[in-house]
Amino acid sequence: MEVTVSRKAHFNAAHRLFNEKWSDKKNSDVFGKCNYPNYHGHNYELIVSVTGKINPDTGYVIDMGELKKIIKNEIEERLDHKNLNLDVPYFSNVIPSAENICIYIYDILRNYIQKEFHLSVKLYETPRNFVEYSGN
Amino acid sequence: MEVTVSRKAHFNAAHRLFNEKWSDKKNSDVFGKCNYPNYHGHNYELIVSVTGKINPDTGYVIDMGELKKIIKNEIEERLDHKNLNLDVPYFSNVIPSAENICIYIYDILRNYIQKEFHLSVKLYETPRNFVEYSGN
Amino acid sequence: MEVTVSRKAHFNAAHRLFNEKWSDKKNSDVFGKCNYPNYHGHNYELIVSVTGKINPDTGYVIDMGELKKIIKNEIEERLDHKNLNLDVPYFSNVIPSAENICIYIYDILRNYIQKEFHLSVKLYETPRNFVEYSGN
Amino acid sequence: MEVTVSRKAHFNAAHRLFNEKWSDKKNSDVFGKCNYPNYHGHNYELIVSVTGKINPDTGYVIDMGELKKIIKNEIEERLDHKNLNLDVPYFSNVIPSAENICIYIYDILRNYIQKEFHLSVKLYETPRNFVEYSGN
Amino acid sequence: MEVTVSRKAHFNAAHRLFNEKWSDKKNSDVFGKCNYPNYHGHNYELIVSVTGKINPDTGYVIDMGELKKIIKNEIEERLDHKNLNLDVPYFSNVIPSAENICIYIYDILRNYIQKEFHLSVKLYETPRNFVEYSGN
Amino acid sequence: MEVTVSRKAHFNAAHRLFNEKWSDKKNSDVFGKCNYPNYHGHNYELIVSVTGKINPDTGYVIDMGELKKIIKNEIEERLDHKNLNLDVPYFSNVIPSAENICIYIYDILRNYIQKEFHLSVKLYETPRNFVEYSGN
Repeated sequence: MEVTVSRKAHFNAAHRLFNEKWSDKKNSDVFGKCNYPNYHGHNYELIVSVTGKINPDTGYVIDMGELKKIIKNEIEERLDHKNLNLDVPYFSNVIPSAENICIYIYDILRNYIQKEFHLSVKLYETPRNFVEYSGN
Repeated sequence: MEVTVSRKAHFNAAHRLFNEKWSDKKNSDVFGKCNYPNYHGHNYELIVSVTGKINPDTGYVIDMGELKKIIKNEIEERLDHKNLNLDVPYFSNVIPSAENICIYIYDILRNYIQKEFHLSVKLYETPRNFVEYSGN
Repeated sequence: MEVTVSRKAHFNAAHRLFNEKWSDKKNSDVFGKCNYPNYHGHNYELIVSVTGKINPDTGYVIDMGELKKIIKNEIEERLDHKNLNLDVPYFSNVIPSAENICIYIYDILRNYIQKEFHLSVKLYETPRNFVEYSGN
Repeated sequence: MEVTVSRKAHFNAAHRLFNEKWSDKKNSDVFGKCNYPNYHGHNYELIVSVTGKINPDTGYVIDMGELKKIIKNEIEERLDHKNLNLDVPYFSNVIPSAENICIYIYDILRNYIQKEFHLSVKLYETPRNFVEYSGN
Repeated sequence: MEVTVSRKAHFNAAHRLFNEKWSDKKNSDVFGKCNYPNYHGHNYELIVSVTGKINPDTGYVIDMGELKKIIKNEIEERLDHKNLNLDVPYFSNVIPSAENICIYIYDILRNYIQKEFHLSVKLYETPRNFVEYSGN
Repeated sequence: MEVTVSRKAHFNAAHRLFNEKWSDKKNSDVFGKCNYPNYHGHNYELIVSVTGKINPDTGYVIDMGELKKIIKNEIEERLDHKNLNLDVPYFSNVIPSAENICIYIYDILRNYIQKEFHLSVKLYETPRNFVEYSGN
């Protein structure tokens, strides 16, 4: 009997999309406004979902307070009020698209969530654009 | 060809989390503020999803009006404006965590939804914490 | 490694539910207020989700700007500010329930999304009623 | 010491905008898609706000349950699942723009709210377009 | 040149409505489900708005971080995960209606906001019921 | 008889807060994370409200399509996907706090809205922080 529990968090960051192997023109053609040189930014909304059996002693799949702390320490501390391209080493050679940020977050959180639990990460770049990654 | 139809409902209830086998200190350590003795409460938002084939005569998987009535009669009547610990017999020996409330709701609704339909229940305890259960 | 990307859109339309093979009384009994003769309407909110591998050159599964254009040209142009029963030939003999509108949208979009991608369409008829279809 | 209390409600309706004194071309030029002949529709969200002194015996400015009933009986019954142009006599010679619907609702509700209370009506035609009227 | 700045916060609490001077029957007649003896609860959403001149050195009317701290220390600490009737002395003889909670919050915050600023407090008891108080 | 009509829009931008007359330390003490050197960003949500008499020929206070175009051409074109500090000359010597951005937007829009209409601008920097300015 498995239940999925989800926790919402958020961080604000700047980024721009560009591929360093491409000309300025090709970058502009492909990425449009997202390629503007001086960065733009988003209020990223993050939903972390963990699926597993309920612990009968607590009624919890996972302690939401613990999950909140992990998200704060491992994700918000790294990304909140940062420039993803300049301040986060991982994105020095990975394009900080919503898709890649979502995988980055998943890969960090995976280390803190017990192996027997399924993990899924949903990331809203805007209320109109969002992505989801579940590790495969 | 299967479609999932979902209906949103809500109820307001009080609860507290504690394990009667534990000391006060352990309860407080594990459940924190959720263990405060005099109860706190939530606006629970509920999403009930039913998956099945469309009836070509109606264009419906299931009549949303009927589903609304079932949720009202079977869930809201039992839980709305109640103290889950004191007023709902099921929770006299089950901790009313979001996870357990979600299973409780699923198990009741399962009796009212035809066997050939898949059922899933999502329960928001707050806009930031929510759980989902699909019966296995 | 597959990621799901989603794009939100919206359109406003009028419709009514009725089955031309049924008497007025049966239509009214089954569809209630949704059967009123002079139509009513909704702000439909649409979420289109595409699942696939990330293109390492762009960091994208699919260009969200392209997806936005496809939704605008192929769905909004056909449905926005329309009477679904009278203005959309497909619904001249298909009941424009949320379920059937969702399948209609899916079937159109499927032609514009590469075969190797999984497609899913979620349609909110109201904030309280919504449906989802993924092609099987 | 005055407090404002607000209650949210909703109704779904069809309408179209046109001025019967104008040519088809002028109607189309002025109202664009909102002038399409076969109607379109919206999920109208309504917020009714009443400002007044608190009754010390109840802690209420006005009983929200009563306000909910008034809105249901006087507004939802008249407008929900209706075609505003065809089914609501008031709009046979008044254009059912959000502005005019808002005034219509205000004028009805004003009869049911005690004179010493201030009344304000906010009407969302879509999540992106809304209007407010307070009686002067 | 005055600007209004607003900060959103939230707390979860239990309460019930009753007037100790009334019979059980009258309490039940007036307050309905809100009078149930074992309490129910809400996710209260709070919006605190401060109006004043911008400080040209900071571009701020008031430091939102400071405002967040005041709300946390003075309001959330007192109300979050509490039973308003039993745990908050103020409500031992004041009915904890949304209206009265809003005034309670306003009166506390007024002490921490500079006199030259206008203060307004909006409190959502549910997404459908909310109140606002501005000190007169 | 005056009605307020409101239109929602949005833009994504990067910014940082700092006062060029202050030391790095003072900037960091006052602005905290908002002072990080490489910028961060937000999904700004904008609500523009215009109050005036209804034109009886259209049922409109102001044509929402026109208002949408003005916001697009005059605000989104200037701010969307931009770095407010680097790309918008106005903010070369004005701190781009939410308060100051709101005044900037108001002052531009004021030129495009007829004098007899009242104008108000609300700007959400995040769903939790927002500001409003009405020209005095």
